[in-house]
Amino acid sequence: MSKNITLADVFFEELQDIYGAEKQLLRALPKVIKHASSDELIQAFVEHLEQTKIQVLRIEQAFEETGKSAKSKKCEAMAGLIKEAEEMMNEDMDKEVSDAVLVGMAQKIEHYEIATYGTLCTWAKALGYLSAKKLLGENMDEEEKTDKLLTKLSSRVNTHANA
Amino acid sequence: MSKNITLADVFFEELQDIYGAEKQLLRALPKVIKHASSDELIQAFVEHLEQTKIQVLRIEQAFEETGKSAKSKKCEAMAGLIKEAEEMMNEDMDKEVSDAVLVGMAQKIEHYEIATYGTLCTWAKALGYLSAKKLLGENMDEEEKTDKLLTKLSSRVNTHANA
Repeated sequence: MSKNITLADVFFEELQDIYGAEKQLLRALPKVIKHASSDELIQAFVEHLEQTKIQVLRIEQAFEETGKSAKSKKCEAMAGLIKEAEEMMNEDMDKEVSDAVLVGMAQKIEHYEIATYGTLCTWAKALGYLSAKKLLGENMDEEEKTDKLLTKLSSRVNTHANA
Repeated sequence: MSKNITLADVFFEELQDIYGAEKQLLRALPKVIKHASSDELIQAFVEHLEQTKIQVLRIEQAFEETGKSAKSKKCEAMAGLIKEAEEMMNEDMDKEVSDAVLVGMAQKIEHYEIATYGTLCTWAKALGYLSAKKLLGENMDEEEKTDKLLTKLSSRVNTHANA
């Protein structure tokens, strides 16, 4: 006998989670951009801020395509990661070390999103939500590209941090 | 003029974070194994439990190789992810949906670890901690393999969940 919570229910709960997470990130990124030092890192964060705005629109479209109203819930994991980044920004460290830590924090955030979009895409496919799967897959691809760019930047940042 | 916190300091702080995270996961996995339904998923979690025990030893060796005593701190991100998984395990859902959610949660945990080990490896390289880098790289490779295995399992689990 089927119980209360279905795969569709957990899909929509997860979609609300990532919608909340992206909106929390939108509010946090300007502070991170202000704190970053290296021009390349600032540029990467500025671009990611613009990308995140489009990702939020894609999530809203994914809700729409599946006949639901867009609704967000506070993502506790994202809240924790942002809090950790904010605490770090108040600590006394050289800008090169600070940049290295910012990249590390940003990569944790990217990986949280990659894992969530991966799960959402698998579930969207199982549920036959093919338009939503396409939209969420685009977001996932962008997060993966951002993570790779940050890995590239981290090796440069860290060489300076240890100089 | 150099300020207080160096790249070596943040490296050791991050090493304490992942040491705490892996030990928290060691304590949580038996409950997850007990809650999982599909034989393949149970087997994957059992194997990952054994792997995690070895990963903890590698982290202890990484501390040793860099002349430090192994010390862990509570990883708040891991605590949050485990708490979310535990809450889910108390909810009323069919075992197929529950398995799908467990895989999703496990992949968030794997991605948290992949991001952390990635940063640790980059910093270990910059700091010249080459033995530690090798040990932490082995852990990262295992987490990536586990994540890929979970992705494979998720498509099977989800087909059942939506049946």
